[in-house]
Amino acid sequence: MIIVMKSNAADTAINNVEDALKSLGLGVHISKGAQRTIIGVIGDKSKIEPGTIELMEGVSEVVIISKSYKLASREFKEDDTIVDLPNGLKMGGKNPVVVMAGPCSVENEEMIIETAKAVKEMGAQVLRGGAFKPRTSPYSFQGLGEKGLKYLAKAREITGLPIITEVMDTRDIDLVAKYADILQIGARNMQNFVLLKEVGKTKKPVFIKRGPASTMEELFMAAEYVMSEGNKNIILCERGIKTMENYTRNTLDLSLIPVVKRESHLPIVVDPSHGTGLWRLVAPMSRAAIAAGADGLMIEVHPNPKAAKSDGPQSLNFDNFKKLMDDIRGIAQIVGRG
Amino acid sequence: MIIVMKSNAADTAINNVEDALKSLGLGVHISKGAQRTIIGVIGDKSKIEPGTIELMEGVSEVVIISKSYKLASREFKEDDTIVDLPNGLKMGGKNPVVVMAGPCSVENEEMIIETAKAVKEMGAQVLRGGAFKPRTSPYSFQGLGEKGLKYLAKAREITGLPIITEVMDTRDIDLVAKYADILQIGARNMQNFVLLKEVGKTKKPVFIKRGPASTMEELFMAAEYVMSEGNKNIILCERGIKTMENYTRNTLDLSLIPVVKRESHLPIVVDPSHGTGLWRLVAPMSRAAIAAGADGLMIEVHPNPKAAKSDGPQSLNFDNFKKLMDDIRGIAQIVGRG
Amino acid sequence: MIIVMKSNAADTAINNVEDALKSLGLGVHISKGAQRTIIGVIGDKSKIEPGTIELMEGVSEVVIISKSYKLASREFKEDDTIVDLPNGLKMGGKNPVVVMAGPCSVENEEMIIETAKAVKEMGAQVLRGGAFKPRTSPYSFQGLGEKGLKYLAKAREITGLPIITEVMDTRDIDLVAKYADILQIGARNMQNFVLLKEVGKTKKPVFIKRGPASTMEELFMAAEYVMSEGNKNIILCERGIKTMENYTRNTLDLSLIPVVKRESHLPIVVDPSHGTGLWRLVAPMSRAAIAAGADGLMIEVHPNPKAAKSDGPQSLNFDNFKKLMDDIRGIAQIVGRG
Amino acid sequence: MIIVMKSNAADTAINNVEDALKSLGLGVHISKGAQRTIIGVIGDKSKIEPGTIELMEGVSEVVIISKSYKLASREFKEDDTIVDLPNGLKMGGKNPVVVMAGPCSVENEEMIIETAKAVKEMGAQVLRGGAFKPRTSPYSFQGLGEKGLKYLAKAREITGLPIITEVMDTRDIDLVAKYADILQIGARNMQNFVLLKEVGKTKKPVFIKRGPASTMEELFMAAEYVMSEGNKNIILCERGIKTMENYTRNTLDLSLIPVVKRESHLPIVVDPSHGTGLWRLVAPMSRAAIAAGADGLMIEVHPNPKAAKSDGPQSLNFDNFKKLMDDIRGIAQIVGRG
Repeated sequence: MIIVMKSNAADTAINNVEDALKSLGLGVHISKGAQRTIIGVIGDKSKIEPGTIELMEGVSEVVIISKSYKLASREFKEDDTIVDLPNGLKMGGKNPVVVMAGPCSVENEEMIIETAKAVKEMGAQVLRGGAFKPRTSPYSFQGLGEKGLKYLAKAREITGLPIITEVMDTRDIDLVAKYADILQIGARNMQNFVLLKEVGKTKKPVFIKRGPASTMEELFMAAEYVMSEGNKNIILCERGIKTMENYTRNTLDLSLIPVVKRESHLPIVVDPSHGTGLWRLVAPMSRAAIAAGADGLMIEVHPNPKAAKSDGPQSLNFDNFKKLMDDIRGIAQIVGRG
Repeated sequence: MIIVMKSNAADTAINNVEDALKSLGLGVHISKGAQRTIIGVIGDKSKIEPGTIELMEGVSEVVIISKSYKLASREFKEDDTIVDLPNGLKMGGKNPVVVMAGPCSVENEEMIIETAKAVKEMGAQVLRGGAFKPRTSPYSFQGLGEKGLKYLAKAREITGLPIITEVMDTRDIDLVAKYADILQIGARNMQNFVLLKEVGKTKKPVFIKRGPASTMEELFMAAEYVMSEGNKNIILCERGIKTMENYTRNTLDLSLIPVVKRESHLPIVVDPSHGTGLWRLVAPMSRAAIAAGADGLMIEVHPNPKAAKSDGPQSLNFDNFKKLMDDIRGIAQIVGRG
Repeated sequence: MIIVMKSNAADTAINNVEDALKSLGLGVHISKGAQRTIIGVIGDKSKIEPGTIELMEGVSEVVIISKSYKLASREFKEDDTIVDLPNGLKMGGKNPVVVMAGPCSVENEEMIIETAKAVKEMGAQVLRGGAFKPRTSPYSFQGLGEKGLKYLAKAREITGLPIITEVMDTRDIDLVAKYADILQIGARNMQNFVLLKEVGKTKKPVFIKRGPASTMEELFMAAEYVMSEGNKNIILCERGIKTMENYTRNTLDLSLIPVVKRESHLPIVVDPSHGTGLWRLVAPMSRAAIAAGADGLMIEVHPNPKAAKSDGPQSLNFDNFKKLMDDIRGIAQIVGRG
Repeated sequence: MIIVMKSNAADTAINNVEDALKSLGLGVHISKGAQRTIIGVIGDKSKIEPGTIELMEGVSEVVIISKSYKLASREFKEDDTIVDLPNGLKMGGKNPVVVMAGPCSVENEEMIIETAKAVKEMGAQVLRGGAFKPRTSPYSFQGLGEKGLKYLAKAREITGLPIITEVMDTRDIDLVAKYADILQIGARNMQNFVLLKEVGKTKKPVFIKRGPASTMEELFMAAEYVMSEGNKNIILCERGIKTMENYTRNTLDLSLIPVVKRESHLPIVVDPSHGTGLWRLVAPMSRAAIAAGADGLMIEVHPNPKAAKSDGPQSLNFDNFKKLMDDIRGIAQIVGRG
């Protein structure tokens, strides 16, 4: 932390800041320039509430140098985190791209099994499907709940695909963890800190979707909440942010991929279905995500999108998913992730 | 709902859409124009998942005309909702502006009582204070929990001020409702739908903060979740949205006030402390909020902002809060809410 | 400028940065901390292209401390700029609020004279009206050009109101300056740097509208372009920014007012007509702007908004403008600007 | 255009709207539903100023169905526009990806020739370089002007590469067009309508950069301005938009590529240098752009980025550019554009 004093700050003001820092057990390093004095702070900055120093007389600006995320940072852990999934599947690092596919919602037993078989055959390695659904409207289909989890488990039994599904309520974590191989935290719950802490106490990998208006740093802090409870198996997911542009439901922020790769050791997956909201954009954006270095994709696939109970317009049918898988295999190879 | 067909849509495509709608028990009204055919849909549209129609052959666009919010809309309930608070305090409609003031976090018994006494004397009608705190970092002060609630109750006992405090976890609702007069849903939980449903089952007024990237419609849908469970005592709160501008922590969207007043019957309050992140901006933005027609203000006040455990930089000290209260009394009178 | 080295930066890397700075004639001040070395830069930083230092080995971050705007900053000029307008009218400082009113476009001689008379009677002090119109579509009405300027001049002759009108092209500056009392730079031209420089060479006050996605700093830099050519008579204008919210055409960012007042000495005006896009919101947002400390308002007024050639939906008719003027007089008095 | 009346609109209100439309020579088609009346408008809608109808009694909403862009739309021209460049180079359609590379600014004769030779050898087909530079600060290097154009011409003479350079002022169009093969309209001038019209009168291909907060529709309208003057040789360019995220200078919106391909016949190029602001992100984002279907790339390359007079941090050096070119060749082949 660097404290920049105003150009006209009095010596007493500088002394007051110095005293305040020292009283917290922190070291200070003062540089008096021609124009202004700058104070470097040494020691455990968690003792200072960021911002309150800015209220002191004569202070112009406080510059935070240390990052607020620790466990999630590449500085803390240099090696890529590899998330181990059932059947020896591995995500992250130099491992091949992992595709998670399936319907938005589990609608019934038949459709989830049909979809699981189809996406497996086409090359998907994880089955997605929602049992508890966060819907904008209380009047929309809210998911099948535990019944949906059971159908997912059945589909896993038949196909061998590990399953990922969302948990929305601290009270449901045990239930969902009983069935799921990966616990998904939805975009709208990315800053539901109590939920993050609680899944951090489980041993299941946690898949965290970036909130529709969350910064990279906030995404890392969400991971930090989980990791600070002991669970280090985190997969991050970019799924679009809200911007002034609305020809797509969200603006898919693919630059996040290389930035996350640099700043963090955690794997990052892209969800182009929610990221665009339109099935026609899913294939080009999936290709782009892999080309940019993503560790995986999460794609909504439905046997009959026109009849889907949710997210039909952004779901691929089996044919289109098959074509996409062919394309991304080629690109994955070029970027060394085939 | 209006379905706009493509200019080159075949008759069979039009017939298919017609059949699909009729099979759902909906009425259709077809207008063949020179350039394109337009299909009006009559009946209970909740039977159609918005968007799937757009996947049908020949469909160019589906235009939603009905609003997705019902109970929260002015169309559904013409009269202003008046929220009844303890001691005969009333919010909304033509009632005088209500000011809710207090510290970000309850830090200890003494400070919350001191603050409660001070803000009451200066004219605040409700005491705010966080016991469960949603913090971006897991390493920041997370609040005193139940102890904080007890201190708040003590402050109420002494001053008579009703208390508002946040609930973050479905498991804590009973506990918080035992102490609080108003249950606050924080901005980051605005789309925590399970939490919204559960507070909808209580009888306490619910104060919903707009999410930092939520649209007005999403805010109304959050209210709808609470209301659909039977609890109609909702207070909305604007506290700034994220934009490309970052000289303030958030961009306070005051236009929301007159728009909410027109679209909904619910009272709306402005929180200029979070909405700007800087105490110097709290007074001008508070004045502006009242001038724009807000039903109330939520303001962070701390006996000694420089020593605050959270949100110091955006908290007013007692002197500044006093000055502000004088200003807003004048403006409230001009807009007929004194 | 402060250069933060990486925690593992080698001594040679630190020496290289030091040498590079010294070779530019700059002074350096090195603080070696326990974790990292920080280098303060002393002297004329305009010699360094911001950012290239960040490319050097071992550099973690470059922190800019000096502001990029100079002439526009309160640090450079402590006293409020007062812009002198014809007939002794003054804007800025503690002077009373100035209301600029009139139609979006000058449509014909009769309507501009009728409007000028009406708004003058109701208390407006400046007449607005577009002769050259920046329209999103090339097929929309583009303004009357010089004829429009002549009608404006006639309206001034009759009413005595100074006129403000937009200039869009460097080739038109002489022409527009011949008629106008204030040269308006439209929001879409806020970063048309050649236009800014050229109006900087005139002696007419320049009214700069904030671009729909420009930061405060970019707005100040636009002013800086004009001021660096010698013209110090600048009026800034907030007219809404683009955000993810679209229930209003733009999001009016009223927090800009107190921030501009602190960071700069220039007057700031609010245009709630463009800032909201809806006439019903013009009155509440005008009241709010004055309550927040704006130096003036720019309001679209039309004799018959339903028949307006442009911006009808956001224009007030005479009756509504009259009511608004009454309201804002009261609020202006409370904030000491009556 | 569809006019949705309020559910409680009186018959006289409906009649008034009908009469107003008919008086403009438009046809109307009225559908009376159970809940509300909907009025379809038939004929030349350019006669109605969008929005003024919304001011009429009883009108709830006006829904625009026709797009505001015509010449730029795929509906108007089904076949891809192929832009012909010197030496038989073609952009758009199924033609191979075109890479435009070179420094931000032409700094001197030697460096532009050195860069031209290097990028040509590595596979670039067009040379970029700024002679007139739009800089945020009036105190930054503003470009060499005509001297820069002459150096560019010299580099073309030596290498045979066509040149693209920016024009900022209507007064400079003839000068720039004398030297340049492609006229670039910068992002900040995307809505400088007079400039757009004037370049529309030349015969040179026009390269339009999307404004940092412009929607797809506004980008198309910028093209429409040029095309409405007779110049149909347009290349669009995505270079990032401003969002609430600021870990990159802009958020590169790659979804625009497939959407533009569907909505328009014009070629689209991506500029990942400005789109990210960081050279490390240029390679992954270039790969992603090609994978998403872009017709070309514009990339900043500098012999020595650390010494660049502008945009050093986002410029590639020759080595990194060479590596990138290898990668994108592979991806271009997979998407059929090698």
